[in-house]
Amino acid sequence: MADTILVLGTWNSMFSNRVRIALLEKGVEYEYKEEDLSNKSPLLLESNPIHKKIPVLIHNKRPICESLIIVQYIDETWNKTSPLMPGDPYERANARFWGDFIDKKASDFLMLRRNHTRSLTVADPSIYDCGTRLYWKSKGVDRDEAKKEFIESLKVLEGELGQKPYFGGESFGYVDVAFIPFGCWFNTYEKSGKFSVEEECPKLMAWVRRCMERESVAKVLPDSDRICEFIDAIKKRFGVE
Amino acid sequence: MADTILVLGTWNSMFSNRVRIALLEKGVEYEYKEEDLSNKSPLLLESNPIHKKIPVLIHNKRPICESLIIVQYIDETWNKTSPLMPGDPYERANARFWGDFIDKKASDFLMLRRNHTRSLTVADPSIYDCGTRLYWKSKGVDRDEAKKEFIESLKVLEGELGQKPYFGGESFGYVDVAFIPFGCWFNTYEKSGKFSVEEECPKLMAWVRRCMERESVAKVLPDSDRICEFIDAIKKRFGVE
Repeated sequence: MADTILVLGTWNSMFSNRVRIALLEKGVEYEYKEEDLSNKSPLLLESNPIHKKIPVLIHNKRPICESLIIVQYIDETWNKTSPLMPGDPYERANARFWGDFIDKKASDFLMLRRNHTRSLTVADPSIYDCGTRLYWKSKGVDRDEAKKEFIESLKVLEGELGQKPYFGGESFGYVDVAFIPFGCWFNTYEKSGKFSVEEECPKLMAWVRRCMERESVAKVLPDSDRICEFIDAIKKRFGVE
Repeated sequence: MADTILVLGTWNSMFSNRVRIALLEKGVEYEYKEEDLSNKSPLLLESNPIHKKIPVLIHNKRPICESLIIVQYIDETWNKTSPLMPGDPYERANARFWGDFIDKKASDFLMLRRNHTRSLTVADPSIYDCGTRLYWKSKGVDRDEAKKEFIESLKVLEGELGQKPYFGGESFGYVDVAFIPFGCWFNTYEKSGKFSVEEECPKLMAWVRRCMERESVAKVLPDSDRICEFIDAIKKRFGVE
Protein backbone atom coordinates (compact mmCIF):
# COMPACT_ATOMS: atom_id res chain seq x y z
CA MET A 1 0.00 0.00 0.00
CA ALA A 2 1.32 3.44 -0.89
CA ASP A 3 2.16 5.89 1.89
CA THR A 4 -0.29 8.69 2.55
CA ILE A 5 1.48 11.93 3.39
CA LEU A 6 -0.37 15.10 4.29
CA VAL A 7 1.01 18.44 5.49
CA LEU A 8 -1.18 20.94 7.34
CA GLY A 9 0.25 24.46 7.08
CA THR A 10 -0.13 28.01 5.82
CA TRP A 11 1.62 29.50 2.79
CA ASN A 12 3.41 32.16 4.85
CA SER A 13 4.46 30.06 7.83
CA MET A 14 8.21 29.60 8.08
CA PHE A 15 7.54 26.53 10.15
CA SER A 16 5.29 24.66 7.73
CA ASN A 17 7.54 25.63 4.81
CA ARG A 18 10.43 23.83 6.51
CA VAL A 19 8.43 20.60 6.36
CA ARG A 20 7.49 21.02 2.71
CA ILE A 21 11.08 21.81 1.67
CA ALA A 22 12.39 18.76 3.55
CA LEU A 23 9.87 16.48 1.79
CA LEU A 24 10.80 17.90 -1.63
CA GLU A 25 14.51 17.47 -0.89
CA LYS A 26 13.76 13.80 -0.29
CA GLY A 27 11.68 13.56 -3.45
CA VAL A 28 8.61 12.57 -1.43
CA GLU A 29 5.23 13.42 -2.91
CA TYR A 30 2.74 14.81 -0.44
CA GLU A 31 -0.67 16.37 -0.21
CA TYR A 32 -0.85 19.87 1.22
CA LYS A 33 -3.76 21.46 3.04
CA GLU A 34 -3.80 25.20 3.68
CA GLU A 35 -5.16 25.94 7.15
CA ASP A 36 -7.21 28.97 8.07
CA LEU A 37 -5.75 29.83 11.47
CA SER A 38 -8.72 31.94 12.46
CA ASN A 39 -10.87 28.83 11.98
CA LYS A 40 -8.69 25.78 12.50
CA SER A 41 -9.82 22.53 10.91
CA PRO A 42 -11.03 19.63 13.09
CA LEU A 43 -8.19 17.60 11.55
CA LEU A 44 -5.59 20.08 12.84
CA LEU A 45 -7.14 20.20 16.30
CA GLU A 46 -7.29 16.44 16.65
CA SER A 47 -3.82 15.90 15.12
CA ASN A 48 -2.12 18.37 17.46
CA PRO A 49 -4.34 18.44 20.56
CA ILE A 50 -1.54 19.73 22.81
CA HIS A 51 -0.43 22.84 20.90
CA LYS A 52 -3.18 23.11 18.24
CA LYS A 53 -0.61 24.60 15.87
CA ILE A 54 0.68 24.09 12.37
CA PRO A 55 2.63 22.43 10.92
CA VAL A 56 1.51 18.85 11.29
CA LEU A 57 2.77 16.03 9.09
CA ILE A 58 0.31 13.16 8.92
CA HIS A 59 2.09 10.06 7.67
CA ASN A 60 -0.14 7.03 7.17
CA LYS A 61 -2.68 8.63 9.55
CA ARG A 62 -0.10 9.19 12.31
CA PRO A 63 0.49 12.87 13.15
CA ILE A 64 3.93 14.34 13.88
CA CYS A 65 4.13 17.86 15.31
CA GLU A 66 6.72 20.64 15.77
CA SER A 67 8.55 21.64 12.61
CA LEU A 68 12.12 20.66 13.49
CA ILE A 69 10.98 17.38 14.98
CA ILE A 70 9.11 16.72 11.74
CA VAL A 71 12.22 17.54 9.67
CA GLN A 72 14.24 15.03 11.71
CA TYR A 73 11.45 12.48 11.28
CA ILE A 74 11.51 13.00 7.51
CA ASP A 75 15.29 12.62 7.46
CA GLU A 76 15.16 9.40 9.49
CA THR A 77 12.19 7.90 7.60
CA TRP A 78 13.33 8.61 4.03
CA ASN A 79 16.96 7.95 4.84
CA LYS A 80 18.16 6.56 1.53
CA THR A 81 18.57 9.90 -0.29
CA SER A 82 19.69 13.45 0.47
CA PRO A 83 20.64 13.15 4.14
CA LEU A 84 19.80 16.38 5.93
CA MET A 85 21.55 15.57 9.22
CA PRO A 86 25.30 14.92 9.36
CA GLY A 87 26.38 11.34 10.05
CA ASP A 88 28.65 12.17 12.99
CA PRO A 89 27.00 12.57 16.44
CA TYR A 90 29.02 15.70 17.27
CA GLU A 91 28.14 17.35 13.98
CA ARG A 92 24.53 16.30 14.52
CA ALA A 93 24.50 17.94 17.96
CA ASN A 94 25.91 21.06 16.34
CA ALA A 95 23.18 21.08 13.68
CA ARG A 96 20.52 20.65 16.39
CA PHE A 97 22.09 23.51 18.34
CA TRP A 98 21.73 25.91 15.40
CA GLY A 99 18.21 24.70 14.61
CA ASP A 100 17.31 25.40 18.22
CA PHE A 101 19.04 28.80 18.06
CA ILE A 102 16.92 29.74 15.05
CA ASP A 103 13.76 28.71 16.91
CA LYS A 104 14.79 30.64 20.01
CA LYS A 105 15.47 33.73 17.90
CA ALA A 106 12.47 33.30 15.61
CA SER A 107 10.76 36.32 17.09
CA ASP A 108 13.86 38.38 16.23
CA PHE A 109 13.81 37.14 12.65
CA LEU A 110 10.12 37.93 12.45
CA MET A 111 10.92 41.23 14.15
CA LEU A 112 8.26 40.53 16.67
CA ARG A 113 9.07 42.23 19.92
CA ARG A 114 8.94 39.37 22.37
CA ASN A 115 7.25 41.15 25.28
CA HIS A 116 4.41 42.28 23.09
CA THR A 117 3.49 38.96 21.54
CA ARG A 118 1.11 37.87 24.25
CA SER A 119 -1.26 40.79 23.86
CA LEU A 120 -1.09 40.52 20.09
CA THR A 121 -1.98 36.84 20.33
CA VAL A 122 -5.05 37.60 22.33
CA ALA A 123 -6.12 40.43 20.07
CA ASP A 124 -5.68 38.58 16.80
CA PRO A 125 -4.39 35.02 16.82
CA SER A 126 -4.31 34.70 13.06
CA ILE A 127 -1.95 37.66 12.75
CA TYR A 128 0.38 36.27 15.36
CA ASP A 129 0.27 32.72 14.08
CA CYS A 130 1.17 33.60 10.55
CA GLY A 131 4.24 35.39 11.78
CA THR A 132 3.39 38.94 10.97
CA ARG A 133 5.65 41.25 12.72
CA LEU A 134 4.83 43.80 15.27
CA TYR A 135 7.81 45.58 13.74
CA TRP A 136 5.54 46.82 11.02
CA LYS A 137 3.20 48.16 13.61
CA SER A 138 5.77 49.72 15.92
CA LYS A 139 7.52 53.06 15.63
CA GLY A 140 10.60 54.93 16.84
CA VAL A 141 12.61 53.28 19.63
CA ASP A 142 10.67 50.00 19.54
CA ARG A 143 11.28 49.69 15.83
CA ASP A 144 14.98 50.46 16.17
CA GLU A 145 15.31 47.88 18.90
CA ALA A 146 13.54 45.19 16.85
CA LYS A 147 15.91 45.94 13.98
CA LYS A 148 18.98 45.81 16.23
CA GLU A 149 18.04 42.41 17.68
CA PHE A 150 17.28 41.12 14.21
CA ILE A 151 20.67 42.16 12.81
CA GLU A 152 22.54 40.81 15.84
CA SER A 153 20.96 37.38 15.47
CA LEU A 154 21.64 37.39 11.73
CA LYS A 155 25.30 38.20 12.30
CA VAL A 156 25.67 35.27 14.68
CA LEU A 157 24.30 32.98 11.96
CA GLU A 158 26.50 34.59 9.32
CA GLY A 159 29.46 33.78 11.58
CA GLU A 160 28.37 30.14 11.78
CA LEU A 161 27.95 29.94 7.99
CA GLY A 162 31.51 31.26 7.54
CA GLN A 163 32.96 30.43 4.12
CA LYS A 164 30.75 27.38 3.56
CA PRO A 165 28.21 27.38 0.72
CA TYR A 166 25.56 25.91 3.08
CA PHE A 167 25.18 25.57 6.84
CA GLY A 168 25.37 21.85 6.11
CA GLY A 169 28.82 22.35 4.48
CA GLU A 170 29.00 21.36 0.83
CA SER A 171 25.39 20.21 0.82
CA PHE A 172 22.06 21.69 1.83
CA GLY A 173 21.12 20.27 5.24
CA TYR A 174 19.05 20.49 8.40
CA VAL A 175 20.08 24.04 9.42
CA ASP A 176 19.53 25.26 5.87
CA VAL A 177 16.01 23.79 5.93
CA ALA A 178 15.42 25.38 9.33
CA PHE A 179 16.49 28.87 8.29
CA ILE A 180 15.75 29.42 4.60
CA PRO A 181 11.99 29.96 5.11
CA PHE A 182 12.93 33.09 7.08
CA GLY A 183 15.41 34.12 4.40
CA CYS A 184 12.82 34.73 1.71
CA TRP A 185 11.42 37.60 3.77
CA PHE A 186 14.71 39.46 4.03
CA ASN A 187 14.44 40.93 0.53
CA THR A 188 11.11 42.43 1.38
CA TYR A 189 12.53 44.19 4.44
CA GLU A 190 14.50 46.38 2.07
CA LYS A 191 11.34 47.60 0.45
CA SER A 192 8.91 47.57 3.35
CA GLY A 193 11.31 48.08 6.27
CA LYS A 194 13.56 50.61 4.62
CA PHE A 195 16.80 48.90 5.53
CA SER A 196 19.06 46.47 3.73
CA VAL A 197 19.95 43.01 5.01
CA GLU A 198 22.36 42.83 2.05
CA GLU A 199 24.42 45.69 3.46
CA GLU A 200 24.53 44.25 6.97
CA CYS A 201 25.05 40.58 6.07
CA PRO A 202 26.19 40.14 2.45
CA LYS A 203 27.36 36.53 2.91
CA LEU A 204 24.08 35.50 4.42
CA MET A 205 22.17 37.09 1.55
CA ALA A 206 24.40 35.22 -0.91
CA TRP A 207 23.39 32.04 0.95
CA VAL A 208 19.70 33.02 0.62
CA ARG A 209 20.11 33.44 -3.15
CA ARG A 210 22.00 30.14 -3.40
CA CYS A 211 19.19 28.32 -1.58
CA MET A 212 16.48 30.03 -3.61
CA GLU A 213 17.96 28.44 -6.74
CA ARG A 214 17.14 24.99 -5.41
CA GLU A 215 13.97 23.47 -6.82
CA SER A 216 12.62 22.48 -3.38
CA VAL A 217 13.02 25.98 -1.99
CA ALA A 218 11.81 27.84 -5.07
CA LYS A 219 8.73 25.63 -5.26
CA VAL A 220 7.67 26.15 -1.65
CA LEU A 221 8.61 29.69 -0.65
CA PRO A 222 6.31 32.55 -1.60
CA ASP A 223 7.71 35.19 -3.96
CA SER A 224 8.62 38.68 -2.80
CA ASP A 225 5.57 40.32 -4.39
CA ARG A 226 3.17 38.11 -2.48
CA ILE A 227 5.01 38.80 0.79
CA CYS A 228 5.11 42.56 0.13
CA GLU A 229 1.38 42.56 -0.57
CA PHE A 230 0.82 40.68 2.66
CA ILE A 231 2.94 43.13 4.67
CA ASP A 232 1.20 46.08 3.04
CA ALA A 233 -2.17 44.64 4.07
CA ILE A 234 -0.95 44.33 7.65
CA LYS A 235 0.42 47.87 7.69
CA LYS A 236 -2.86 49.15 6.34
CA ARG A 237 -4.79 47.20 8.92
CA PHE A 238 -2.76 48.77 11.72
CA GLY A 239 -2.69 52.18 10.08
CA VAL A 240 1.11 52.29 9.80
CA GLU A 241 3.11 54.21 7.18
CA MET B 1 43.76 7.46 24.66
CA ALA B 2 40.92 7.53 27.17
CA ASP B 3 38.02 9.91 26.62
CA THR B 4 37.90 13.05 28.73
CA ILE B 5 34.37 13.90 29.76
CA LEU B 6 33.53 16.99 31.77
CA VAL B 7 30.10 18.36 32.74
CA LEU B 8 29.65 22.01 33.74
CA GLY B 9 26.50 22.45 35.85
CA THR B 10 24.95 23.38 39.17
CA TRP B 11 23.61 20.94 41.75
CA ASN B 12 20.08 22.33 41.60
CA SER B 13 19.75 22.76 37.82
CA MET B 14 17.19 20.42 36.29
CA PHE B 15 18.99 20.87 33.01
CA SER B 16 22.49 19.86 34.08
CA ASN B 17 21.08 16.97 36.11
CA ARG B 18 19.58 15.54 32.92
CA VAL B 19 23.08 15.28 31.45
CA ARG B 20 24.56 13.64 34.54
CA ILE B 21 21.73 11.07 34.76
CA ALA B 22 22.11 10.20 31.06
CA LEU B 23 25.87 9.62 31.49
CA LEU B 24 25.30 7.39 34.52
CA GLU B 25 22.62 5.41 32.67
CA LYS B 26 25.27 4.70 30.05
CA GLY B 27 27.84 3.80 32.68
CA VAL B 28 30.12 6.60 31.49
CA GLU B 29 32.50 8.09 34.05
CA TYR B 30 32.77 11.84 33.95
CA GLU B 31 34.24 14.76 35.80
CA TYR B 32 31.81 17.32 37.17
CA LYS B 33 32.45 20.99 37.80
CA GLU B 34 29.98 23.02 39.86
CA GLU B 35 29.54 26.46 38.32
CA ASP B 36 28.92 29.66 40.27
CA LEU B 37 26.34 31.36 38.06
CA SER B 38 26.93 34.75 39.63
CA ASN B 39 30.57 34.43 38.54
CA LYS B 40 30.68 32.12 35.52
CA SER B 41 34.00 30.38 34.79
CA PRO B 42 36.05 31.33 31.71
CA LEU B 43 35.66 27.69 30.62
CA LEU B 44 31.84 28.00 30.63
CA LEU B 45 31.93 31.30 28.75
CA GLU B 46 34.25 30.00 26.06
CA SER B 47 32.46 26.63 25.76
CA ASN B 48 29.03 28.18 25.30
CA PRO B 49 29.73 31.63 23.83
CA ILE B 50 26.24 31.94 22.33
CA HIS B 51 24.05 31.32 25.38
CA LYS B 52 26.67 31.38 28.21
CA LYS B 53 24.53 28.86 30.08
CA ILE B 54 24.91 25.53 31.82
CA PRO B 55 24.91 22.66 31.17
CA VAL B 56 27.83 22.07 28.85
CA LEU B 57 29.26 18.62 28.15
CA ILE B 58 32.91 18.81 27.08
CA HIS B 59 33.85 15.56 25.37
CA ASN B 60 37.51 15.32 24.34
CA LYS B 61 37.70 19.12 24.50
CA ARG B 62 34.67 19.59 22.22
CA PRO B 63 31.74 21.37 23.89
CA ILE B 64 28.10 20.36 23.39
CA CYS B 65 25.36 22.69 24.67
CA GLU B 66 21.63 22.59 25.45
CA SER B 67 20.57 19.80 27.78
CA LEU B 68 18.29 17.76 25.50
CA ILE B 69 20.73 18.04 22.61
CA ILE B 70 23.44 16.77 24.96
CA VAL B 71 21.24 13.83 26.06
CA GLN B 72 20.72 12.87 22.41
CA TYR B 73 24.46 13.21 21.80
CA ILE B 74 25.16 10.90 24.75
CA ASP B 75 22.64 8.38 23.46
CA GLU B 76 24.14 8.42 19.98
CA THR B 77 27.78 8.35 21.12
CA TRP B 78 27.52 5.61 23.74
CA ASN B 79 25.04 3.62 21.71
CA LYS B 80 25.96 0.09 22.75
CA THR B 81 24.14 0.08 26.12
CA SER B 82 20.89 1.40 27.61
CA PRO B 83 19.33 3.11 24.60
CA LEU B 84 17.44 6.21 25.72
CA MET B 85 15.73 6.93 22.39
CA PRO B 86 13.33 4.44 20.80
CA GLY B 87 14.54 2.69 17.65
CA ASP B 88 11.54 3.61 15.50
CA PRO B 89 11.52 7.08 13.85
CA TYR B 90 7.88 7.73 14.77
CA GLU B 91 8.44 6.79 18.41
CA ARG B 92 11.58 8.92 18.36
CA ALA B 93 9.61 11.92 17.07
CA ASN B 94 7.11 11.31 19.85
CA ALA B 95 9.86 11.25 22.50
CA ARG B 96 11.30 14.49 21.10
CA PHE B 97 7.84 16.05 21.18
CA TRP B 98 7.47 15.35 24.91
CA GLY B 99 11.02 16.46 25.67
CA ASP B 100 10.22 19.70 23.89
CA PHE B 101 6.89 19.99 25.74
CA ILE B 102 8.74 19.71 29.07
CA ASP B 103 11.15 22.45 28.01
CA LYS B 104 8.33 24.69 26.83
CA LYS B 105 6.51 24.18 30.13
CA ALA B 106 9.65 24.35 32.31
CA SER B 107 8.58 27.67 33.76
CA ASP B 108 5.29 26.06 34.83
CA PHE B 109 7.13 23.20 36.52
CA LEU B 110 9.40 25.70 38.22
CA MET B 111 6.29 27.73 39.00
CA LEU B 112 7.93 30.74 37.51
CA ARG B 113 5.34 33.09 36.11
CA ARG B 114 6.46 33.55 32.54
CA ASN B 115 5.71 37.23 32.14
CA HIS B 116 7.73 38.08 35.22
CA THR B 117 10.88 36.20 34.41
CA ARG B 118 12.52 38.96 32.46
CA SER B 119 12.60 41.43 35.34
CA LEU B 120 13.70 38.69 37.71
CA THR B 121 16.53 37.78 35.35
CA VAL B 122 17.76 41.33 35.28
CA ALA B 123 17.48 41.74 39.04
CA ASP B 124 19.29 38.56 39.94
CA PRO B 125 20.48 36.25 37.18
CA SER B 126 21.77 33.59 39.57
CA ILE B 127 18.35 33.19 41.14
CA TYR B 128 16.72 32.83 37.77
CA ASP B 129 19.35 30.55 36.31
CA CYS B 130 19.23 28.05 39.13
CA GLY B 131 15.50 27.67 38.61
CA THR B 132 14.19 29.22 41.75
CA ARG B 133 10.57 29.96 41.45
CA LEU B 134 8.86 33.25 41.59
CA TYR B 135 6.01 31.19 43.03
CA TRP B 136 7.73 31.33 46.36
CA LYS B 137 7.88 35.06 46.13
CA SER B 138 4.37 35.68 44.82
CA LYS B 139 1.12 35.87 46.73
CA GLY B 140 -2.66 35.58 46.26
CA VAL B 141 -3.91 35.44 42.69
CA ASP B 142 -0.45 35.17 41.11
CA ARG B 143 0.37 32.22 43.31
CA ASP B 144 -2.94 30.49 42.56
CA GLU B 145 -2.39 30.96 38.86
CA ALA B 146 1.15 29.57 38.99
CA LYS B 147 -0.20 26.53 40.83
CA LYS B 148 -3.02 26.07 38.33
CA GLU B 149 -0.67 26.15 35.32
CA PHE B 150 1.68 23.77 37.07
CA ILE B 151 -1.05 21.20 37.78
CA GLU B 152 -2.45 21.47 34.24
CA SER B 153 0.93 20.73 32.68
CA LEU B 154 1.49 17.84 35.09
CA LYS B 155 -1.85 16.30 34.19
CA VAL B 156 -1.00 16.41 30.48
CA LEU B 157 2.19 14.48 31.25
CA GLU B 158 0.35 12.06 33.51
CA GLY B 159 -1.98 11.38 30.58
CA GLU B 160 1.00 10.64 28.32
CA LEU B 161 2.51 8.31 30.95
CA GLY B 162 -0.78 6.39 31.12
CA GLN B 163 -0.35 2.89 32.55
CA LYS B 164 3.29 2.56 31.53
CA PRO B 165 6.00 2.27 34.22
CA TYR B 166 8.14 4.82 32.36
CA PHE B 167 7.56 7.39 29.65
CA GLY B 168 9.94 5.19 27.64
CA GLY B 169 7.57 2.22 28.12
CA GLU B 170 9.08 -0.73 29.94
CA SER B 171 12.45 0.99 30.20
CA PHE B 172 13.71 4.35 31.44
CA GLY B 173 14.30 6.58 28.40
CA TYR B 174 14.77 10.05 26.95
CA VAL B 175 11.54 11.59 28.29
CA ASP B 176 12.19 10.12 31.73
CA VAL B 177 15.67 11.69 31.71
CA ALA B 178 14.15 14.99 30.57
CA PHE B 179 11.51 15.13 33.28
CA ILE B 180 12.77 13.38 36.41
CA PRO B 181 15.06 16.27 37.50
CA PHE B 182 11.87 18.32 37.94
CA GLY B 183 10.19 15.47 39.79
CA CYS B 184 12.47 15.55 42.80
CA TRP B 185 11.16 19.02 43.64
CA PHE B 186 7.52 17.93 43.77
CA ASN B 187 7.82 16.42 47.26
CA THR B 188 9.09 19.68 48.61
CA TYR B 189 6.09 21.58 47.24
CA GLU B 190 3.98 19.72 49.76
CA LYS B 191 6.03 21.13 52.59
CA SER B 192 6.99 24.54 51.25
CA GLY B 193 4.09 25.18 48.92
CA LYS B 194 1.32 23.78 51.09
CA PHE B 195 -0.25 21.65 48.40
CA SER B 196 0.09 18.05 47.39
CA VAL B 197 1.20 16.87 43.95
CA GLU B 198 0.40 13.34 45.19
CA GLU B 199 -3.27 14.22 45.55
CA GLU B 200 -3.48 15.84 42.12
CA CYS B 201 -1.33 13.37 40.15
CA PRO B 202 -0.89 10.10 42.07
CA LYS B 203 0.35 8.12 39.03
CA LEU B 204 2.97 10.70 38.23
CA MET B 205 4.22 10.68 41.80
CA ALA B 206 4.44 6.88 41.65
CA TRP B 207 6.59 7.37 38.54
CA VAL B 208 8.80 9.84 40.45
CA ARG B 209 9.33 7.28 43.23
CA ARG B 210 10.05 4.54 40.69
CA CYS B 211 12.69 6.70 39.01
CA MET B 212 14.22 7.76 42.33
CA GLU B 213 15.00 4.11 43.02
CA ARG B 214 17.35 4.02 40.05
CA GLU B 215 21.00 4.38 40.93
CA SER B 216 21.64 7.06 38.28
CA VAL B 217 18.78 9.24 39.50
CA ALA B 218 19.40 8.74 43.23
CA LYS B 219 23.08 9.58 42.78
CA VAL B 220 22.50 12.84 40.90
CA LEU B 221 19.37 14.45 42.28
CA PRO B 222 19.55 16.47 45.50
CA ASP B 223 17.58 15.15 48.49
CA SER B 224 14.43 16.85 49.72
CA ASP B 225 16.11 18.38 52.78
CA ARG B 226 18.68 20.20 50.69
CA ILE B 227 15.98 21.50 48.34
CA CYS B 228 13.78 22.64 51.26
CA GLU B 229 16.73 24.47 52.80
CA PHE B 230 17.38 26.13 49.47
CA ILE B 231 13.74 27.20 49.09
CA ASP B 232 13.67 28.47 52.67
CA ALA B 233 16.74 30.59 51.96
CA ILE B 234 15.03 32.10 48.91
CA LYS B 235 11.84 32.81 50.82
CA LYS B 236 13.85 34.50 53.56
CA ARG B 237 15.74 36.53 51.00
CA PHE B 238 12.48 37.81 49.52
CA GLY B 239 10.79 38.19 52.92
CA VAL B 240 8.00 35.71 52.07
CA GLU B 241 6.11 33.59 54.61
